[in-house]
Amino acid sequence: MIIDCHGHYTTAPEAHTAWRTAQQNAFRDGVTPPAYPDIPDDEIRASIEGSQLRLMDERGIDLTIFSPRASAMGHHFGDESVSRAWTEASNDLIARVIKLFPTRFAGVCQLPQSPGVPIARSVPELRRCVEELGFVGCNLNPDPSGGHWTAAPLTDESWFPLYEAMVELDVPAMVHVSAVTNDNFHATGSHYLNADTTAFMQFLQSDLFERFPGLRFVIPHGGGAVPYHWGRFRGLADMLDRPPLTSLLGNVFFDTCVYHQPGIDLLFSVIDVDNILFGSEMVGAVRGIDPTTGHHFDDTRRYVSSLDLPPGALEKVYSSNARRVYPRLV
Amino acid sequence: MIIDCHGHYTTAPEAHTAWRTAQQNAFRDGVTPPAYPDIPDDEIRASIEGSQLRLMDERGIDLTIFSPRASAMGHHFGDESVSRAWTEASNDLIARVIKLFPTRFAGVCQLPQSPGVPIARSVPELRRCVEELGFVGCNLNPDPSGGHWTAAPLTDESWFPLYEAMVELDVPAMVHVSAVTNDNFHATGSHYLNADTTAFMQFLQSDLFERFPGLRFVIPHGGGAVPYHWGRFRGLADMLDRPPLTSLLGNVFFDTCVYHQPGIDLLFSVIDVDNILFGSEMVGAVRGIDPTTGHHFDDTRRYVSSLDLPPGALEKVYSSNARRVYPRLV
Repeated sequence: MIIDCHGHYTTAPEAHTAWRTAQQNAFRDGVTPPAYPDIPDDEIRASIEGSQLRLMDERGIDLTIFSPRASAMGHHFGDESVSRAWTEASNDLIARVIKLFPTRFAGVCQLPQSPGVPIARSVPELRRCVEELGFVGCNLNPDPSGGHWTAAPLTDESWFPLYEAMVELDVPAMVHVSAVTNDNFHATGSHYLNADTTAFMQFLQSDLFERFPGLRFVIPHGGGAVPYHWGRFRGLADMLDRPPLTSLLGNVFFDTCVYHQPGIDLLFSVIDVDNILFGSEMVGAVRGIDPTTGHHFDDTRRYVSSLDLPPGALEKVYSSNARRVYPRLV
Repeated sequence: MIIDCHGHYTTAPEAHTAWRTAQQNAFRDGVTPPAYPDIPDDEIRASIEGSQLRLMDERGIDLTIFSPRASAMGHHFGDESVSRAWTEASNDLIARVIKLFPTRFAGVCQLPQSPGVPIARSVPELRRCVEELGFVGCNLNPDPSGGHWTAAPLTDESWFPLYEAMVELDVPAMVHVSAVTNDNFHATGSHYLNADTTAFMQFLQSDLFERFPGLRFVIPHGGGAVPYHWGRFRGLADMLDRPPLTSLLGNVFFDTCVYHQPGIDLLFSVIDVDNILFGSEMVGAVRGIDPTTGHHFDDTRRYVSSLDLPPGALEKVYSSNARRVYPRLV
């Protein structure tokens, strides 16, 4: 069985995204947003069958851990109530996908974060998604300001109310930023990767996992710059009198969203196979075909299967690591 | 001959760094800073011979392209006049090192950047360093705010006055941020790497090098996350209707400051050998000994020499690429 730990609903029905635009316009105009539209099951089915599910079938992916489109989370926009309404609508839509395709998708929720709003106010939505909708995890945005990095580091105690709930519910978070409003950054080209690297270094510097031994994070996009600079991070841990990096590996995991063979080779050469979860970020950041291979850049299964891993290792990456990190999958 | 393109004067005499502290205190107190101290040649000689030069000799490095300590540039601190005075003092100190060891060091200057101050006001210091002190390049900070990313992207025309001077003087810039005042980031652990990735994506998105065909940038720390995610960047260039990444390689170069063998292997497997300059960032970010090898993490010559490159390729990386990117070296 092959589980893709990193899929976003980037092909959501037009009525859903149009409502977001209407909601944003209403906020700007200081008026009440329109009611969320009725979206028939058939539209949702078509939006999945024609893209995500077709690609999963082509690539032999059995199950995708599926969350709302990351770049559309837009926590920076509006205020807490705008973020909450959009988040609930987006999570409800994921729940409908799962109801339609219960054997092919598992849900991960967006949180109703908003700059300056205590994370405790995101906990009820996490509980609703896990306890009522059957979701298996959440996406946590370390920079709800959208590229201005105004929140406290993920290791600051202001985040602890969420971590307490995550541990209690036994769900992990994928560290995932959203769109940027800072011209220095391109969302998928630099902001995402920077956030991955930033989060790892925050974890390295702190005792967060002594305080929360059961807390688990997936750092997507192959860990940003981290595996490529694994020697640098090992050296920094040493210089900063921190425990070896291996001390983080009970709590921190990386996906395989690295879109060329040399990158995947590197990932597997430095990160223990117990800490790598198969993922493709599909249909997502990079949708084209690599002219050097003739295959989609994001067809990460090709890279992983080219590694010639022993069957036990492959099974961990494809399936059992995901089940361990997201135990509610079972 | 082996040229290290990335060395910072991290062992500058105590009197120099103490003056910086005094200058900062004076700014805080609203008083005139003390005069810059007399630092005898012997102190400078000792600060170099006991560390940088000893390590260069141990590692077989003939020449280091040497600049003021990057984390100490601190462009965010104080105001334009504070940044200018500190920059001039730091560059003058580099000039003295070069005068004492003219066959072993070449100078690269810090610029007197300050948040919100037009970059044109850094041009006179660049000219002074190149034309009067014989420097061969500069370090350019894309985020003089120190981790808040309030400046325009490097591709914005507000930077063009500097680029015009760089082209006229035929000197490159290393893209290099400094200390951070944003708790989310660790200077050497995430901010440096993020800035490298960010700058590359900015270049990818723009026509900067059509406007300035002779402009050259070195992206340090092995290019941040870029080579590890080379497939992602190739795919993004395609998605964004940009030319192939190879179109950037007449203007953008990477150093070898990647502190483990698998990272260096990856760098050389994806980046053309014409675009890699040997560098170690020594004595710098990571000073310890790697327990898995028994050698210093930043002894990057070991990793490069383990690659078994053909002699012509090795010569490019060790010497002729640096001479091409920094033509004033000759």
